[in-house]
Amino acid sequence: MKTLLLNCDMGESFGAWQMGMDEEVMPHIDCASIACGFHAGDPGVMRRTVRLAVQHGVRIGAHPAYPDLAGFGRRSMSCSPQEIADLLHYQIGALDGICRAQGARVTYVKPHGALYNDMMRDAELLQTIMRVVSAHEGDLQLVLLARRDNSEAQAMADEYGLSLLFEAFADRAYDAQGHLVSRQLPGSVHLTHETVVAQALSIAAERPIIAADGSPLVLQADTLCVHGDNPAALAAIQQIRAAMQTAPGR
Amino acid sequence: MKTLLLNCDMGESFGAWQMGMDEEVMPHIDCASIACGFHAGDPGVMRRTVRLAVQHGVRIGAHPAYPDLAGFGRRSMSCSPQEIADLLHYQIGALDGICRAQGARVTYVKPHGALYNDMMRDAELLQTIMRVVSAHEGDLQLVLLARRDNSEAQAMADEYGLSLLFEAFADRAYDAQGHLVSRQLPGSVHLTHETVVAQALSIAAERPIIAADGSPLVLQADTLCVHGDNPAALAAIQQIRAAMQTAPGR
Amino acid sequence: MKTLLLNCDMGESFGAWQMGMDEEVMPHIDCASIACGFHAGDPGVMRRTVRLAVQHGVRIGAHPAYPDLAGFGRRSMSCSPQEIADLLHYQIGALDGICRAQGARVTYVKPHGALYNDMMRDAELLQTIMRVVSAHEGDLQLVLLARRDNSEAQAMADEYGLSLLFEAFADRAYDAQGHLVSRQLPGSVHLTHETVVAQALSIAAERPIIAADGSPLVLQADTLCVHGDNPAALAAIQQIRAAMQTAPGR
Amino acid sequence: MKTLLLNCDMGESFGAWQMGMDEEVMPHIDCASIACGFHAGDPGVMRRTVRLAVQHGVRIGAHPAYPDLAGFGRRSMSCSPQEIADLLHYQIGALDGICRAQGARVTYVKPHGALYNDMMRDAELLQTIMRVVSAHEGDLQLVLLARRDNSEAQAMADEYGLSLLFEAFADRAYDAQGHLVSRQLPGSVHLTHETVVAQALSIAAERPIIAADGSPLVLQADTLCVHGDNPAALAAIQQIRAAMQTAPGR
Repeated sequence: MKTLLLNCDMGESFGAWQMGMDEEVMPHIDCASIACGFHAGDPGVMRRTVRLAVQHGVRIGAHPAYPDLAGFGRRSMSCSPQEIADLLHYQIGALDGICRAQGARVTYVKPHGALYNDMMRDAELLQTIMRVVSAHEGDLQLVLLARRDNSEAQAMADEYGLSLLFEAFADRAYDAQGHLVSRQLPGSVHLTHETVVAQALSIAAERPIIAADGSPLVLQADTLCVHGDNPAALAAIQQIRAAMQTAPGR
Repeated sequence: MKTLLLNCDMGESFGAWQMGMDEEVMPHIDCASIACGFHAGDPGVMRRTVRLAVQHGVRIGAHPAYPDLAGFGRRSMSCSPQEIADLLHYQIGALDGICRAQGARVTYVKPHGALYNDMMRDAELLQTIMRVVSAHEGDLQLVLLARRDNSEAQAMADEYGLSLLFEAFADRAYDAQGHLVSRQLPGSVHLTHETVVAQALSIAAERPIIAADGSPLVLQADTLCVHGDNPAALAAIQQIRAAMQTAPGR
Repeated sequence: MKTLLLNCDMGESFGAWQMGMDEEVMPHIDCASIACGFHAGDPGVMRRTVRLAVQHGVRIGAHPAYPDLAGFGRRSMSCSPQEIADLLHYQIGALDGICRAQGARVTYVKPHGALYNDMMRDAELLQTIMRVVSAHEGDLQLVLLARRDNSEAQAMADEYGLSLLFEAFADRAYDAQGHLVSRQLPGSVHLTHETVVAQALSIAAERPIIAADGSPLVLQADTLCVHGDNPAALAAIQQIRAAMQTAPGR
Repeated sequence: MKTLLLNCDMGESFGAWQMGMDEEVMPHIDCASIACGFHAGDPGVMRRTVRLAVQHGVRIGAHPAYPDLAGFGRRSMSCSPQEIADLLHYQIGALDGICRAQGARVTYVKPHGALYNDMMRDAELLQTIMRVVSAHEGDLQLVLLARRDNSEAQAMADEYGLSLLFEAFADRAYDAQGHLVSRQLPGSVHLTHETVVAQALSIAAERPIIAADGSPLVLQADTLCVHGDNPAALAAIQQIRAAMQTAPGR
């Protein structure tokens, strides 16, 4: 059984507004994808989240987004490749500046929300992001969606000498190609812990999960995206963590 | 005669709005203080300004500000020391991220506008800024106003092992203590090239200039702040540069 | 016993971030002071809050602030009188536009956070705000802090033909002059329902409350500011409402 | 010959940044489409622009946009119909609040940039915008692009009892259907005054202009969009105005 890194979106509060349960979740994850101020996170929230990650020995990733605070980075924006490059360097640099002041470093990049979705749909955008992440100082890795076949993305990354982290979701339904079923559709989000934990273990063991059309789907993943918005989500994280550690074959 | 570094505020455009004559000014200065997105400058403007500085071998400084785009960072805001620390690390880091992608680095910090003025009035704020700049990775220097007596600021910086660059203004009138005369008052800005160049040369030679009350004032400065907003200002920069290079005793 | 209008800050969510318990609080108050997008509230939040107020027959007030989303409008900014006038007209107009689309109107203005505090400290700022509110179409009232002696503010308002609503706080300690004791100081916020309800009833009956120095303080108030951030605060609102309706002498 | 109203985008400065030649242009136009703070224009700029329009008896229109200051509203954003409705009411209301304080009113709405382009491409978005503008108080008109055939848009507007102003461009090339040729393509913008003025007169006289494919194109327009960004553009406005006033048949 593979060791899947657990990654979670963190630092999504802003100013007076609280979001997430970062203090409770941090002890249970491996990688914290921290908002960089464009969709969430202000400099103070970023500092506190970095400190928390450092305390728990959690790897820090930049979670950059389109510049859309009111829309939480969930609205696609028609940016040029150059604009994407610029806003990535800015956001990664800003988080890295805050990390360095605490003796830490950004080690990976995971685009957020609409930027992530657009990247998985648009090969030119993916290429732009790969180029930027590989050009940024510090051997950063890029997190992107694991699909039925990762070879195309992998080949593209190899051109840039870029290391990838393919991620899977324990709580989301997939279509036969390994795309996430849209949140608009019924059954797109698994609601019971049993289903979530079972899907996590299948992915970790590289056993097939069942896609929305009933076909078996094997995902080659390095990391599992978990959510920590509420007590139930937190419990699911703890269960997944425990199950992976005691799974037969580990 | 001392060699005064010429520093100029750069990268003050934003989105579709143009400000300054950065391309014309850059060849004539030593240090470019680049806006970091909070009062001016967006990620694209920052990239272009960094590239220009790199092309001309000009040192790059971060020019951080209060978060006030509509007020161009000229309105004082009652931020806590922690808020100041956070917004400095964020802005310095963002610019440094953009620099690194071009093989450059931020080498100094000069607070902008109201933050600069507040820093010169408020010893606690100055101390906060010194602590932050010294804690940020990379041996950054801090630019602050040269006054009649710099010893207090120097002593404070020594505690943090921080290197300072004291700056003087060629085009502004001073009071007897070495504070700038407020822009609201008549005579606060020198209007003729002759006066500006003469004041620049006096400061470089550590000869007294005449304060607003008629008393002689000697400023110990490392750098001279120049402005490049219009063709006349650009001409003044070129004259100062030429005068300093040919001045007797150099 | 006077009928005190209960007013509450509402619509303080923003984008994906939730704040307050507006749905639960709205049925129990008379006046909703709605954030206008500068410190909180986006156009969607504003629409939903206006609808809620209309459903419950609650008066709608604009709750304008300094332009400081990250600081929730709690940081003072050195704006000119003209800048204050402009940002007030903008914010009142924006909320009124959203009201009109639902057949409602803004009927009063209550500055928020640092702008409110600055207004109570700075007579020139108060005058600017009075002038703006009286100039805005629609006979708007202005909410300001009731103090030991309201006559000066009242005289100023009379010059503009402006109607005032003096407000008092049930949950805050006062000094002898009728200023609120700073939140930084111990004892500034009343923690038991008994104290809060008792202070509310005293103010309604125009009986003295006990200031921080032990002296009796009579406040002439038209409205009582209540808070609805949490279940306990909601319960306090309900108790105050019930107590005022059944109080002897009413 | 028809009287075409000349409309121009105005109030596109922001904070310390200047854009456009509003003072010079205002005397020569009929309708000022004023930015509302989301892509350009701050409350102070809006006040000054409204005052200028009032002084010259120019009709005031709201020029709302996607919330994208850094992109000047030129980047399409995937907003829901409800989000579009909310941001329109907010921006129209904000400008109207500033107008009312000067005894004026908003009388029409012209979406800006990417929002305008998206509206002309997407019938559902156009319908949303028509619904919002007709629901906003004050019998506002909507400006949209005149095409070969305006009947579909007109029928849609009739359902809402909404009055339309179809606009044409004197300085842009058209395709055979009456869409603007993309600015990316060569020949999309007319560069000589002669061509611009000739196209303006043809449109005013409802004579065919020559589309990009050489076919004749008749546009039924109520208003002509002119630009005032530079001295040459200003001269073109003055020439168009003069030509229309002296044209035979007027």
